[in-house]
Amino acid sequence: MSESSEMPIRENEPKVGAEKTTEQKVNQKAKKVEKKKDKPVGKSEAKQPTGKAGKQGKKNDSALISITVDKAGDFPEWYQQVLLKGDMLDYYDISGCYILKPASQYIWDTIHTWFDAKIKKMGVKNCSFPLFVSEDVLNKEKSHIEGFAAEVAWVTHGGSTKLEKKIAIRPTSETVMYPYYAKWIQSYLDLPLKLNQWNSVVRWEFKHPQPFLRTREFHWQEGHTAHLTKEEADTEVLEILGHYAGVYEQLLAVPVMKGRKTDKERFAGGLYTTTVEGYIPATGRGIQGGTSHCLGQNFSKMFGITVQDPKATTDEEKKQPLYVWQNSWGLSTRVIGVMVMIHGDDRGLVLPPKVSEIQVIIVPVGIKASTTEEDRTKLYKEIEGLVEVLRAGDVRVEADFREGYSPGYKFNDWELKGVPLRLEFGPMDSEKHQVTTSRRDLPAGPESKGTIAITELNTEVPQLLETIQKDMYDRADKKFKEHVVKITNWDDFVPELNQKNVCLIPHCLTEECEDQVKDLSARKAEEQSGVPQDEKAPSMGAKSLCIPFEQPDGIEKGVTACTNPKCSRKAEAWCLFGRSY
Amino acid sequence: MSESSEMPIRENEPKVGAEKTTEQKVNQKAKKVEKKKDKPVGKSEAKQPTGKAGKQGKKNDSALISITVDKAGDFPEWYQQVLLKGDMLDYYDISGCYILKPASQYIWDTIHTWFDAKIKKMGVKNCSFPLFVSEDVLNKEKSHIEGFAAEVAWVTHGGSTKLEKKIAIRPTSETVMYPYYAKWIQSYLDLPLKLNQWNSVVRWEFKHPQPFLRTREFHWQEGHTAHLTKEEADTEVLEILGHYAGVYEQLLAVPVMKGRKTDKERFAGGLYTTTVEGYIPATGRGIQGGTSHCLGQNFSKMFGITVQDPKATTDEEKKQPLYVWQNSWGLSTRVIGVMVMIHGDDRGLVLPPKVSEIQVIIVPVGIKASTTEEDRTKLYKEIEGLVEVLRAGDVRVEADFREGYSPGYKFNDWELKGVPLRLEFGPMDSEKHQVTTSRRDLPAGPESKGTIAITELNTEVPQLLETIQKDMYDRADKKFKEHVVKITNWDDFVPELNQKNVCLIPHCLTEECEDQVKDLSARKAEEQSGVPQDEKAPSMGAKSLCIPFEQPDGIEKGVTACTNPKCSRKAEAWCLFGRSY
Repeated sequence: MSESSEMPIRENEPKVGAEKTTEQKVNQKAKKVEKKKDKPVGKSEAKQPTGKAGKQGKKNDSALISITVDKAGDFPEWYQQVLLKGDMLDYYDISGCYILKPASQYIWDTIHTWFDAKIKKMGVKNCSFPLFVSEDVLNKEKSHIEGFAAEVAWVTHGGSTKLEKKIAIRPTSETVMYPYYAKWIQSYLDLPLKLNQWNSVVRWEFKHPQPFLRTREFHWQEGHTAHLTKEEADTEVLEILGHYAGVYEQLLAVPVMKGRKTDKERFAGGLYTTTVEGYIPATGRGIQGGTSHCLGQNFSKMFGITVQDPKATTDEEKKQPLYVWQNSWGLSTRVIGVMVMIHGDDRGLVLPPKVSEIQVIIVPVGIKASTTEEDRTKLYKEIEGLVEVLRAGDVRVEADFREGYSPGYKFNDWELKGVPLRLEFGPMDSEKHQVTTSRRDLPAGPESKGTIAITELNTEVPQLLETIQKDMYDRADKKFKEHVVKITNWDDFVPELNQKNVCLIPHCLTEECEDQVKDLSARKAEEQSGVPQDEKAPSMGAKSLCIPFEQPDGIEKGVTACTNPKCSRKAEAWCLFGRSY
Repeated sequence: MSESSEMPIRENEPKVGAEKTTEQKVNQKAKKVEKKKDKPVGKSEAKQPTGKAGKQGKKNDSALISITVDKAGDFPEWYQQVLLKGDMLDYYDISGCYILKPASQYIWDTIHTWFDAKIKKMGVKNCSFPLFVSEDVLNKEKSHIEGFAAEVAWVTHGGSTKLEKKIAIRPTSETVMYPYYAKWIQSYLDLPLKLNQWNSVVRWEFKHPQPFLRTREFHWQEGHTAHLTKEEADTEVLEILGHYAGVYEQLLAVPVMKGRKTDKERFAGGLYTTTVEGYIPATGRGIQGGTSHCLGQNFSKMFGITVQDPKATTDEEKKQPLYVWQNSWGLSTRVIGVMVMIHGDDRGLVLPPKVSEIQVIIVPVGIKASTTEEDRTKLYKEIEGLVEVLRAGDVRVEADFREGYSPGYKFNDWELKGVPLRLEFGPMDSEKHQVTTSRRDLPAGPESKGTIAITELNTEVPQLLETIQKDMYDRADKKFKEHVVKITNWDDFVPELNQKNVCLIPHCLTEECEDQVKDLSARKAEEQSGVPQDEKAPSMGAKSLCIPFEQPDGIEKGVTACTNPKCSRKAEAWCLFGRSY
């Protein structure tokens, strides 16, 4: 499967060189810290989150650990900082490869568990095919391999021995798996065959890498199924797409638009591709969220996956092989990047409660120099009681008893990491039998604050977490909807893109026309912005994101013209175009 | 980590050439089947399990799908057939790589879930480090890389572009992860750091590959932890080893012996290695089951992973870096191979109920040509009711309603696949309000049979599954214990090995002496058997398997001699020696 069948070089982002600089910076930081180690380490400086704090040293100053740029001001730098300082990921000494730290691994594991249960109910079983694929097999399906050839990583040596034949690392597993489907599927009674694997694949791209969004190795699930009829295959394609939408909407609080890819954008070698498309408000760009492909009979013909038609009656009919209908579908760790880009803010990550390893952090407050040891112990014991109550209700809660850190430092630290709900508890709260609440998803201020009576904790906290989850989705959904504009006049196209919108236009759906639209919108942007290549005013052309399943009215077949002024064809459907990742 | 720090070429097994022949056979089968496809496929021949049946064609004869050799007679061939016909695995067109089919993937996923819960309780978190490691980093720890260098797979090209520097595929992740441990661990407050990953690693061995036991890519978990003190590290090493024993004993019904590896056999670059050792009765060989290593401070010194000693008081003490204590531990899909070898029989796989995807299969019986459609429908409905009852009690049950197959064929098919319990249900059973039971773990015969009243089904079936699980373990445990022999006279050593035993001997634990023991026992075997290289009388020398934690009495330190007649040292401990995988 393709993560994204075509990804342009994004001109409004730092180039490979620029990123290398960031990686070097990170490495330099590490080295500086290394050198500092011989110096005495005081209690109060210990356990600084990595990043600037590590670089700048000892001061227990909460400002130092914060994101140093605005999300709106320098989005690429913000994205890198929020991932590093939010403890989601670290850079690696091989470009395009990243380390998933426990916070992001937890999110992926949660998605794994949720989605795995869904597909098991559909009769899908997990399996593991090898990481390697021989050159012959890889090259078997021609149009498919053309989509991947440039980015295949090749193993040529085992130890110091040169291999007789070089071996590829799978960029996706169609050609790895389908020779065995041909072997295993001997009769229509062997259908449907529904297999899935959770693994990682490698695409050695030389384009600018970006954590989660474009990485040389990435984790995903890839489902590969074979069916007797096109109808069955079609049904499954949509069912899977529904679950992909579920991952975004129900777990990650991210709205997506379901649709079909145009011929230009569909999976190499497949019949048609369906997709869930997301939208990043900060850049106004669309992003492919996950794709569910109907491969048709193309691969079954290449690999000879046939059965006898159970409806065949005459000998002649029985001799005709029935090529099975196949699907493949994949969802990758890219989802995490999309979620971070949509919900994060200037204070750091904002995680939806459903995927946050820590949902609630309790921070002791109001402890002063004058507080007696006895009073402090009493307060801590009460907090441990709160933890127990919440855990009994399946809330993932931790208490931050770290010594030598001010509550302010702790607040910043957990906000950076995106913990959805903070509970503050001090002597005053204890007296009033309450906790003070602070929601991460709302801007700092009175609106984000509240109190909950301790007796209500076990019901109110889970309720509040659900509210946070829902509000995060609703806000993102509102923003997405505001930025999808329906236009029919080409002159509005580029100005709308420049307003960070994605555009629904009547379109002929031909590849030739799409290329023109991309071309025209790219040049147009340059002319208009006057500052080509500037990160803040992208000159990138728009490509088609999807043909939404939910089609607005207004297109009269054979009458309505394609929106592209250079195209003389008639419009086939409303098609969503946008700058994209 | 090492799967097995030293694995000799096994002389009593088919060589690479021999296995290739098997793979070719499999491929030939596939091709033959391929050709047959144009012919009409009748109802009754459909869905034949792969293997001989597929080769030999149409006959619906249960004998055809069976294993064609005895486990005792031709163990290597038996092992391959039982995996292929039992639907656990398929061969792949790259030597040393295998496909894990759903039945074996289910077992691995079950182990994953169980073990993951155990380590999470210990505070271990999951993460993902890249598949790739740069040459510089890989070579950083010298004695470690010496253990792996010969079998590292190297990527040299991305697409058609030659990479500036070749990149290794991880054979294990110590050198991948520890540079980041150095960066992340800044203070003793960052300790312990406990990370784990579920992934696959690649060791491009040129020795004879064997499904699950020695594969070029294998799936495993690898835990990597860092601690302030050796005591903490020591404690964790044993706790993990206990969980590894749990995987074998509680899930796979396989007994293991816990112990420590000798210096010769310990992990390359580590301080000491603990192990759970299994025993394969059919061959009389030991097998390393999983290893938990204390790495000591070796890697922390190489990678500069230090903190300040929290006990330091003087400036001088504070300047002394404290190198952290590290562990690493790994358990791989090898466990599945061990389980198959121990429990399987001449009829095929025998799966312990706890890891079998299907625990109970219900087969309709007693349906004749004279049975009315109405009676058949009634019987099937009753069976669906049984399925419902059992599923409500969390029993993983399926009913086999396949048409055109005799009950006998179905019995054989499910026996081949190792389903622990078969329920037969026919008109007679229906009248008596009972089901007939047949246990897979007992030899075919009256002892394996029974009946359960339908009213008792929801309690009796889970109970019977537990009994099966326990009995499987107890039988294997008895056999293991019978074949561990305690000897002090060297003359008994090789004869005991030839009796398929493993030997506990007083030993000096030096590497030099171990080499001699191996050498002596290899030659001795040849002399004795008269048939060197024969598969049934292995001439392989014995190596040390472990120094069992549970030491028998009888060694007087400084007095008891080492058992090796050529060794003049005194015995340090009872050490388990055996031929091994």
